[in-house]
Amino acid sequence: MIDNPTALERTLLETIPLARAMEVSVLEYDGNRLALNAPLRCNVNDKGCAFGGSMASLMTLAGWGLINLKLGEMQCRADIYVADSNMNYLAPLWDELVAEAAAEPGQSWDDFISDFNRRGKARIAIAIEMTSTQGAGVACRMQARFVAKPASF
Amino acid sequence: MIDNPTALERTLLETIPLARAMEVSVLEYDGNRLALNAPLRCNVNDKGCAFGGSMASLMTLAGWGLINLKLGEMQCRADIYVADSNMNYLAPLWDELVAEAAAEPGQSWDDFISDFNRRGKARIAIAIEMTSTQGAGVACRMQARFVAKPASF
Repeated sequence: MIDNPTALERTLLETIPLARAMEVSVLEYDGNRLALNAPLRCNVNDKGCAFGGSMASLMTLAGWGLINLKLGEMQCRADIYVADSNMNYLAPLWDELVAEAAAEPGQSWDDFISDFNRRGKARIAIAIEMTSTQGAGVACRMQARFVAKPASF
Repeated sequence: MIDNPTALERTLLETIPLARAMEVSVLEYDGNRLALNAPLRCNVNDKGCAFGGSMASLMTLAGWGLINLKLGEMQCRADIYVADSNMNYLAPLWDELVAEAAAEPGQSWDDFISDFNRRGKARIAIAIEMTSTQGAGVACRMQARFVAKPASF
């Protein structure tokens, strides 16, 4: 059960080889917003800035991790899948990767949890942003929809 | 200069640590369609099927690689950036990852190359598909737009 940030980080690193290769860690979690980070060094592209695939991966993991935490805190055992995503790359990122995820405006965690408990399936839209830690502004935005289903084991 | 599939694979593995961690290789290139592949083993998620971030990364690399090849064959030295992407995850993928990229219908490589030569900047939309090699159909579709700019070095 992923019901706290330490358990989330352990699960990411133990079960997803790419997360381990990216050296992903949990930076911050306040109950509604989850920030994951990863060093630039393992996530560069041919130009020396952040690789688009690393950005997409970290942002997807931030959304996935946030939903796992929200369900885990309510003792719901679920498998979370990303259904679709929309990414806008706004500027090259030349420093640490930090992805912050929160529910899209208008989305309700209460509705999501109650849907999951009642129907065994629930959907939620998450907004994820990657901002330069050196003050260079927003590098990338993602909107993604996720589906939660009962855990298969 | 990336003007053939061997040079592309070498560049991916030498300059992008995540591509190395994913064990990406060039499967096929026919002049208009590029297929990259990666073993499931290094690209699983917590459920044992393909990780969404690995799928997004391989598909982005397939689009990026195709454009590099098309420009390289014309002796154009360019930096290629992904500008935005749209992904639909249709089914979990339980086998090898294979991403096939081709220009979106209605896009012209001739126009793209001539825009780049004339204006030093060009855009093109690429469609990328990931299909199960075990006959389980299309697992994921991506539409992505890329920008080519003069190489910075």
